[in-house]
Amino acid sequence: MIVLFTDFGADDLYVGQVKAVLAQTAPAVPVIDLLHSAPNFDIESSAHLLAALYQQFSPGSVFFAVVDPGVGGPRESVVMVADGYWFVGPDNGLMSVIAARAQATRLWRITWQPEKLSPSFHGRDLFAPIAAWIAAGQFPADKLAESDGLKVKSNAADSQRIIYIDHYGNCMTSLRSAGVDSDAVMQVAGRAVRRGNAFCEAKLSEAFWYENSVGLVEIAVNQGSAAQSLGLQVGSVITKQK
Amino acid sequence: MIVLFTDFGADDLYVGQVKAVLAQTAPAVPVIDLLHSAPNFDIESSAHLLAALYQQFSPGSVFFAVVDPGVGGPRESVVMVADGYWFVGPDNGLMSVIAARAQATRLWRITWQPEKLSPSFHGRDLFAPIAAWIAAGQFPADKLAESDGLKVKSNAADSQRIIYIDHYGNCMTSLRSAGVDSDAVMQVAGRAVRRGNAFCEAKLSEAFWYENSVGLVEIAVNQGSAAQSLGLQVGSVITKQK
Amino acid sequence: MIVLFTDFGADDLYVGQVKAVLAQTAPAVPVIDLLHSAPNFDIESSAHLLAALYQQFSPGSVFFAVVDPGVGGPRESVVMVADGYWFVGPDNGLMSVIAARAQATRLWRITWQPEKLSPSFHGRDLFAPIAAWIAAGQFPADKLAESDGLKVKSNAADSQRIIYIDHYGNCMTSLRSAGVDSDAVMQVAGRAVRRGNAFCEAKLSEAFWYENSVGLVEIAVNQGSAAQSLGLQVGSVITKQK
Repeated sequence: MIVLFTDFGADDLYVGQVKAVLAQTAPAVPVIDLLHSAPNFDIESSAHLLAALYQQFSPGSVFFAVVDPGVGGPRESVVMVADGYWFVGPDNGLMSVIAARAQATRLWRITWQPEKLSPSFHGRDLFAPIAAWIAAGQFPADKLAESDGLKVKSNAADSQRIIYIDHYGNCMTSLRSAGVDSDAVMQVAGRAVRRGNAFCEAKLSEAFWYENSVGLVEIAVNQGSAAQSLGLQVGSVITKQK
Repeated sequence: MIVLFTDFGADDLYVGQVKAVLAQTAPAVPVIDLLHSAPNFDIESSAHLLAALYQQFSPGSVFFAVVDPGVGGPRESVVMVADGYWFVGPDNGLMSVIAARAQATRLWRITWQPEKLSPSFHGRDLFAPIAAWIAAGQFPADKLAESDGLKVKSNAADSQRIIYIDHYGNCMTSLRSAGVDSDAVMQVAGRAVRRGNAFCEAKLSEAFWYENSVGLVEIAVNQGSAAQSLGLQVGSVITKQK
Repeated sequence: MIVLFTDFGADDLYVGQVKAVLAQTAPAVPVIDLLHSAPNFDIESSAHLLAALYQQFSPGSVFFAVVDPGVGGPRESVVMVADGYWFVGPDNGLMSVIAARAQATRLWRITWQPEKLSPSFHGRDLFAPIAAWIAAGQFPADKLAESDGLKVKSNAADSQRIIYIDHYGNCMTSLRSAGVDSDAVMQVAGRAVRRGNAFCEAKLSEAFWYENSVGLVEIAVNQGSAAQSLGLQVGSVITKQK
């Protein structure tokens, strides 16, 4: 299975072109769109988001992971396997949270240059064929060179930032709830926000935090938009009080 | 075939996680996204919308139907078969319009609790595996208990409300046009709106109503947005004058 | 393979209904969403966009190409094959840029009328089954009449208009960069815009033009929105100075 994680936009014209390459190269491999609205150009948020999401898929899945503001520049291109999951994309920090937390990783630099390589769309011309070959079981060893590790390593520690806002207005942080006491109080936009157990229990329009479905602390308002009512955006900082 | 009807957002991170479960459980079954922008939390509008849409698919299709503001709370989870179509989702009114209009229905409550069940994402953890088993022909009888009928029944009669606004700005009502005279005049936002036969016949920027492609009365403006020009939103009331 | 190119909206309720028909008629044929956010009702922009994109797919692909403000009116419905690529949709100019540039084309008018034909959704009722039959290798000769050529021919010459704005705010023109000197200066919204080679080379927030990944001149700002910072929209005119 190939899983797509990008900031290409689900209703924009890039994903279809990637899928054309995947279908030509690995027609029998299913493709799932995980997310195309990763925060634009925001490598750090995207790295934490991908780290929270990838284990929803089966080991052996190949992630086409492309949030790539430096496309066409000197950043390198890599293939990484981490605890049985494959990742293909830029070496710009996007895979670094996963790498830092994994038990075991191997890394290859992509040395291959395709005949046609648009400087602005390595996703289509470089990463898509590599991902397709791997997913089809044709590991392209002649196009890769094994390497020690990622060059760009972003901070893999939990931060206290909003990394994603869903269309309901729920605000996801990179704070893993496993390490947070259930009576912790979050300071969000000047307010003290307490834990709620489920949407149905929270009073309408009262902000609460909860462990979301991928194990992160998320700020929410029942049947309302936490982003709007608290004025939050991707990058906003929250503080754990106790 | 599995058909997805949700308010999860087409470009958000929920649908991909549902598809991961479907692909793992029923890899050979095709999945079609019918709609992921059902009006957020709006069970009544969604119930009428789903009732208007499902017969575009073949009998035997399994609908993953999840608009679920009470997720994690006391509302129950059900499987319904109505005139040969299958529905999996919450018993919160979402299936009740279909149930009320169907010739024959059978209903089961989901008694199974998966090992991992996120209180905020029953779609992924509970409804997706059940839908996948049914679509794959492995009816999970041991995880279900047959039941008399839905507990939550919303009003199945046609209402005169806007239930959906498409991206062009066309405003769909829950009024089935089969029961409406072709010379009926609709009172919409203080204006009298008459029937038009097709977009090409209407004068540019004049509002008209017509029978849309799923049999509902829809308010439209040729090559323009009826929602904008008339100030309509989901929930706005229209009145049939004669 | 069937490729979808429409202005139906990726998160709206139309694409799923089209896919239901395709799945029923040609279940073994893969379907790729190329674009559902072609500029609403804007045939000329869409025609240039489709002409720039279709060769990213393999010959033999069948394009379901529907931007159709005159649906239900007197415009005709056609099947065109151009240099090995198939197109199914309205004869309203949408295919005319491809037709004008192709080495060889053949054209058929659709004479078939399906039993159920919604005046507002020929995409689902007329074009989808025709596209599916062709893609499945069952050319529906009895439903078509060969014809000399398209009736509606829009201007196939490169224009100097913005035809598409992506979600980053990059502004695509219909000007093919192959015919533009690399030292050409574009006059855009009162500013002189020079060529940049890649996003990574441009100073942040400085507008530049470049050859985009489908061979068109595109106005961009590194890690920012050219549309916003220059006040551009689809239809805005740019001028090549030298």
